Amino acid sequence: MSNLRSGGPVVRRRSFGSDNHAAAHPAVLAMLVAVNEGDAPAYGADPWTEQTATDLSKAFGAHGGVFFVGTGSAANVLGLSLLLRPYEGVVCPATAHINVDECGATERILGNKLLTVPTPDGKLTPALVEPWLAWRGDEHRVQPRVVAIAQATEQGTCYTRSELRELRDFCSAHALRLYIDGARLANAAAHLDCSLADLAGYADVLSFGATKNGALAAEAVVVMREGLGTEVPFLRKQQMQLVSKMRYVAAQFAALLEDGLWLRNAQHANAMALRLAKGLRGTPGVQLCQPVQSNAVFACLDTDLIERLLPTGQVHVWDARARMVRWMTAYNTTEADVDALVGDIRQVAAR
Amino acid sequence: MSNLRSGGPVVRRRSFGSDNHAAAHPAVLAMLVAVNEGDAPAYGADPWTEQTATDLSKAFGAHGGVFFVGTGSAANVLGLSLLLRPYEGVVCPATAHINVDECGATERILGNKLLTVPTPDGKLTPALVEPWLAWRGDEHRVQPRVVAIAQATEQGTCYTRSELRELRDFCSAHALRLYIDGARLANAAAHLDCSLADLAGYADVLSFGATKNGALAAEAVVVMREGLGTEVPFLRKQQMQLVSKMRYVAAQFAALLEDGLWLRNAQHANAMALRLAKGLRGTPGVQLCQPVQSNAVFACLDTDLIERLLPTGQVHVWDARARMVRWMTAYNTTEADVDALVGDIRQVAAR
Amino acid sequence: MSNLRSGGPVVRRRSFGSDNHAAAHPAVLAMLVAVNEGDAPAYGADPWTEQTATDLSKAFGAHGGVFFVGTGSAANVLGLSLLLRPYEGVVCPATAHINVDECGATERILGNKLLTVPTPDGKLTPALVEPWLAWRGDEHRVQPRVVAIAQATEQGTCYTRSELRELRDFCSAHALRLYIDGARLANAAAHLDCSLADLAGYADVLSFGATKNGALAAEAVVVMREGLGTEVPFLRKQQMQLVSKMRYVAAQFAALLEDGLWLRNAQHANAMALRLAKGLRGTPGVQLCQPVQSNAVFACLDTDLIERLLPTGQVHVWDARARMVRWMTAYNTTEADVDALVGDIRQVAAR
Amino acid sequence: MSNLRSGGPVVRRRSFGSDNHAAAHPAVLAMLVAVNEGDAPAYGADPWTEQTATDLSKAFGAHGGVFFVGTGSAANVLGLSLLLRPYEGVVCPATAHINVDECGATERILGNKLLTVPTPDGKLTPALVEPWLAWRGDEHRVQPRVVAIAQATEQGTCYTRSELRELRDFCSAHALRLYIDGARLANAAAHLDCSLADLAGYADVLSFGATKNGALAAEAVVVMREGLGTEVPFLRKQQMQLVSKMRYVAAQFAALLEDGLWLRNAQHANAMALRLAKGLRGTPGVQLCQPVQSNAVFACLDTDLIERLLPTGQVHVWDARARMVRWMTAYNTTEADVDALVGDIRQVAAR
Repeated sequence: MSNLRSGGPVVRRRSFGSDNHAAAHPAVLAMLVAVNEGDAPAYGADPWTEQTATDLSKAFGAHGGVFFVGTGSAANVLGLSLLLRPYEGVVCPATAHINVDECGATERILGNKLLTVPTPDGKLTPALVEPWLAWRGDEHRVQPRVVAIAQATEQGTCYTRSELRELRDFCSAHALRLYIDGARLANAAAHLDCSLADLAGYADVLSFGATKNGALAAEAVVVMREGLGTEVPFLRKQQMQLVSKMRYVAAQFAALLEDGLWLRNAQHANAMALRLAKGLRGTPGVQLCQPVQSNAVFACLDTDLIERLLPTGQVHVWDARARMVRWMTAYNTTEADVDALVGDIRQVAAR
Repeated sequence: MSNLRSGGPVVRRRSFGSDNHAAAHPAVLAMLVAVNEGDAPAYGADPWTEQTATDLSKAFGAHGGVFFVGTGSAANVLGLSLLLRPYEGVVCPATAHINVDECGATERILGNKLLTVPTPDGKLTPALVEPWLAWRGDEHRVQPRVVAIAQATEQGTCYTRSELRELRDFCSAHALRLYIDGARLANAAAHLDCSLADLAGYADVLSFGATKNGALAAEAVVVMREGLGTEVPFLRKQQMQLVSKMRYVAAQFAALLEDGLWLRNAQHANAMALRLAKGLRGTPGVQLCQPVQSNAVFACLDTDLIERLLPTGQVHVWDARARMVRWMTAYNTTEADVDALVGDIRQVAAR
Repeated sequence: MSNLRSGGPVVRRRSFGSDNHAAAHPAVLAMLVAVNEGDAPAYGADPWTEQTATDLSKAFGAHGGVFFVGTGSAANVLGLSLLLRPYEGVVCPATAHINVDECGATERILGNKLLTVPTPDGKLTPALVEPWLAWRGDEHRVQPRVVAIAQATEQGTCYTRSELRELRDFCSAHALRLYIDGARLANAAAHLDCSLADLAGYADVLSFGATKNGALAAEAVVVMREGLGTEVPFLRKQQMQLVSKMRYVAAQFAALLEDGLWLRNAQHANAMALRLAKGLRGTPGVQLCQPVQSNAVFACLDTDLIERLLPTGQVHVWDARARMVRWMTAYNTTEADVDALVGDIRQVAAR
Repeated sequence: MSNLRSGGPVVRRRSFGSDNHAAAHPAVLAMLVAVNEGDAPAYGADPWTEQTATDLSKAFGAHGGVFFVGTGSAANVLGLSLLLRPYEGVVCPATAHINVDECGATERILGNKLLTVPTPDGKLTPALVEPWLAWRGDEHRVQPRVVAIAQATEQGTCYTRSELRELRDFCSAHALRLYIDGARLANAAAHLDCSLADLAGYADVLSFGATKNGALAAEAVVVMREGLGTEVPFLRKQQMQLVSKMRYVAAQFAALLEDGLWLRNAQHANAMALRLAKGLRGTPGVQLCQPVQSNAVFACLDTDLIERLLPTGQVHVWDARARMVRWMTAYNTTEADVDALVGDIRQVAAR
């Protein structure tokens, strides 16, 4: 296994394929080493987990508890499971991660139906949700109960705080619950220049992702309302997410919380995305197609440009029909990385 | 968060409550640091994952692939999901982890029924499985399809190789598939002095646990037969177990595979359990109630002895009705730890 | 299809194989014809359904509604679904229909685990349920929430009213809910000489079977407590049990309710079972093995007697290992049928 | 219950609200009476069920068996369950009954995801299905496996035989399976003037509905390919659809098969729909919005006309946003019924 230590054929160039291509932040690894001391009770009864959950509850203003799990899909499924009866459904954008990228976990693990809505920018509005209310009270139809959004969205856009307020008010007025997929909540907080609590306050339950923010594998389910989290211990175990040596998940969050590392990581990633977008503007055959409000840059490219870029590994096709590509930045993307990418693309485009 | 770095109120004395109370082995953490270099493709397409999966496939003689997941329950559910149609059931001991300690995950996540059998020692035999075959062909009844055993068992016992051979032959003769919960397979290999491939050869699918062997959180599903693993990628994702930065799971296995660390860890834990059992023999009010064949010591204690020991934190009640307690050893249990425990118990028992 | 009208190779002799071998009572068919008049709203909004549900609610003293479904398994699943959260389990006898004879529907359709208890006579007691309470509060374990019994049981026995009272008190004291599988509730009411309301009062939810009482296919879910049935419309539809032309299900119940036909049917079937048991007493090689408290007679037979009877079609093996056979009587079993059966068995036994 | 016999407040006028508002055809009831003779084995082992299933298999050219269930939703769920692995999905029109009108049964009972497609007329085409194939091979995404169509569709339209051939060829070319929801297959056969086998030949599995064709409650799952139906007995029982006295379900089909009653019923219903459409043409404020190809008439009405018609009970709003209403005809709709409806609507429209 010696080649593992020496690294082997890793990606030498910085990848823009996904923010989970990045290694873990050194501070996260350091914290793993720091907590690797002595025996400790399992399943979250250790002091690190308890302290970190408390710290996160404070940061979010959460009254129902904070619970760690291993993957973003697991966080979404666990979070949604707190909000649904068997015949209730989840209104979400057609582009939602829970609809597209979790291999049907919501339907399989929870059995609940997703009620999807096409959107231009990955964002729901009261007007887009409202038609589903026509199903209310009809025993033949799944009953809309949860509105699920992502912040930042899968399109790299962010809901403004007034948009969140409108959705929250709409949900409250119509007995709907609001779930936020916060796999990139840090990026949204950085973009909107607001606290985690500011964002979380609109939700009943949300997830908070650390993995894309510099962790190895750590996600949290944040339950905002008191009493809503009482079933989590059983549901989390049943959903196969009760990590035995939980201190190592907690430690990742602890490292990111320390001195606001999570925010600096997100701010940097966002800044690199803006730099990339700025660099690409005006490139022939490249048309940015979503506002850059987090760490993603979406663009529609001329077909032949995509074809010429593909062999270089510099494009990551998001939607072939729409000729849409996506570049993601991460906490460790450098200005030089961005400039090199821009240079490469401009060079190919100029040919 | 500075108290996290300094450790806080960890368990200063070595815990015998569970083998997952132990910290991770330093070599495991060192490997995490070693692979924390550069960007890498996500979801297992990185070179460390590929190399480690290949190494494990060789070690097990597996022809269907090796797949990493985050928890032991997840490994069991994913493994079983490869073997079952919706109306098929799993014959298992009543004491099986899948029956008792996974909060009903098999029933909830897979929808399959467990067909349980009381056993004296946590071990199935053909004679114990055979009565379920009477259900075969009756459309009103779940069809027995998988025989699921644990090696080592939840009672700390091990199947001998001839017992495994008998079960395997019985399964083959009756169109049953054999699944092995290998959360402590390393301990069984150490006890039986045989290779991983020796044990795995009897199974269709098995799990291999690293967490209790010195990892942070790393489990593998090992698919022995070619073709049986083709659906794993989809099922693993749907079951919320597709870790994005998978190199960090692979690295834990890599560290344990290097120079046979996994085996030394298991041998040491087993030796400490034997030392503990030997030390307890003859203690008034203490009756060992399972043979010590891995890293667990089960004993039935006089009621008053349990009551006197409880305040010391030195007993961990397994089954209150049977007055049964369990002590687990781990890779990092020392002879001094064992001797201190024995001394404490003897002292209390002598009062 | 003319052979269908002329009847074809039906069972000319009365069958003791099951009470669902009987044809429908003529009054039931007559009621189908009576309601087959004019158009009517679908899905239960017709006047016959509304009237019959109201009549049944009164007869049972039910405050949560009465809902029709098509099969006994469906009634059990729907009834249990009102009482369970995903991580909760159902304590039931190992011999329960829901455990043995529904092909795992509870696990598959609801995802909930059954917590089974061996019993001598198919009946639970507080003492048999109580050990499961040790699982309470442990996040690794399914949480016992429902106690499910059958009245009459699958062994032909009946709970006395004081036994029901004890179970009910135990459930109330321990936050458990009581479900009664009433596929043969009519037979129990006849045996105990009490009203449907007398029996139902102990339950939170129960089923009431008409099919074995002279109907074609009609079962009801009876919700005793107000508010507990509000979700039934959605759950019933989702569980594929919302019959569109529901008047024809309601009509079957209406026919059986009229002038107490259901009770006379049950009384007669019970009387025939007693007559059969009495007739068999003292037959060499025949040992009655359950008290006859409904329309079932269970006996353990000498192996060679079973073998000699099998070709005659006069025994129905229930449990080959225990050499146990079962005879069922129905509303249409005649004294002559019983006497002929007894004669045949005695003749074979005397050989 | 005497008011039940005398009929009570039934719908005196013929209802156009749904084809399941109609009573059962007298021949169906007569067949129930005909088979109500003597004891018979339960669960479909009776001669009537066997004969009718054989007759239907011949009529459909089915090689995998014909199986009876109680509701159309149950038929769809059972049929689809033969074709899907857990991570596979069903491509269907957004307006499909399985997507809109079964309260999420597919997701809840099977756990499979529906991949929906907006259509103008309720009909899929290869071009509408093809985009979903982009998900193939991506472990993050549900794998499209079944194309599910209804014939006739929920919009009252029919696939022509060449459209079916195109879909079938597309499915075969792309390892997709074709499922047909045949709740109104009889109406489609009548419209297309072809046999049941002609229509069924394109499918792998289909349902065949009798309820809307004059039965009380009888649906069949028809398995076209040999071997594809071997699991049905277990799946049907587990899905709570194994009717014990199955002769009464079979008898309904037998009555409709006799002398082609099913076809005459469908032809008549279709003719009444055409008469209705013809009668409505040119009515101010009424715009037919789907071709009339079965027993449904869809029209878009001026808002004020809907409002004026609603109090008369003569419109049944299908989609309030689109101002779309639906009228259904049935086997027992008379020309006078249609003419009276047309007269009423025209009168209101003329005001």
